[in-house]
Amino acid sequence: MSEENIVYIGNKPVMNYVLAVVTQMNGGAPEVVLKARGRAISRAVDVAEIVRNRFITDADISGIEISTEEIMSNEGSNTNVSAIEIQLSKL
Amino acid sequence: MSEENIVYIGNKPVMNYVLAVVTQMNGGAPEVVLKARGRAISRAVDVAEIVRNRFITDADISGIEISTEEIMSNEGSNTNVSAIEIQLSKL
Repeated sequence: MSEENIVYIGNKPVMNYVLAVVTQMNGGAPEVVLKARGRAISRAVDVAEIVRNRFITDADISGIEISTEEIMSNEGSNTNVSAIEIQLSKL
Repeated sequence: MSEENIVYIGNKPVMNYVLAVVTQMNGGAPEVVLKARGRAISRAVDVAEIVRNRFITDADISGIEISTEEIMSNEGSNTNVSAIEIQLSKL
């Protein structure tokens, strides 16, 4: 993946992220990776599904990975949070 | 997968589902599939991560698929919802 086309999924409306992915792919990126943690994970899945079903129908999910990340809170204690990476590729 | 060892992830506490998976695997199931829709998707990822990191360390994620399902609401209109399937297998 040249230039790391990564879209970080947060708490904004789903269509904001869909637009970001579509813009990158239409700008020539053959692959885009969606990254999300915690509750944003389900939104990342929504983004991937909307992009490939409605906007870029020749895009497909080429890989999904899940992992656990350790986050340090303001009080200094560590919490674990789940994370997902969804790789979208143009066929 | 014999007898379809499926655990449906809903809105209960994460550890309920972790216990269900661990029980199935310790009972001899070599594979368990976690299924979730909508907001429960992030909980399904939590369950998979907790099982393999803390309880059954020789289990690994052998496959993840995402999809879109159409749901009919009480008023008769259709809504799309994202879904995930996470396959956990003992090595």
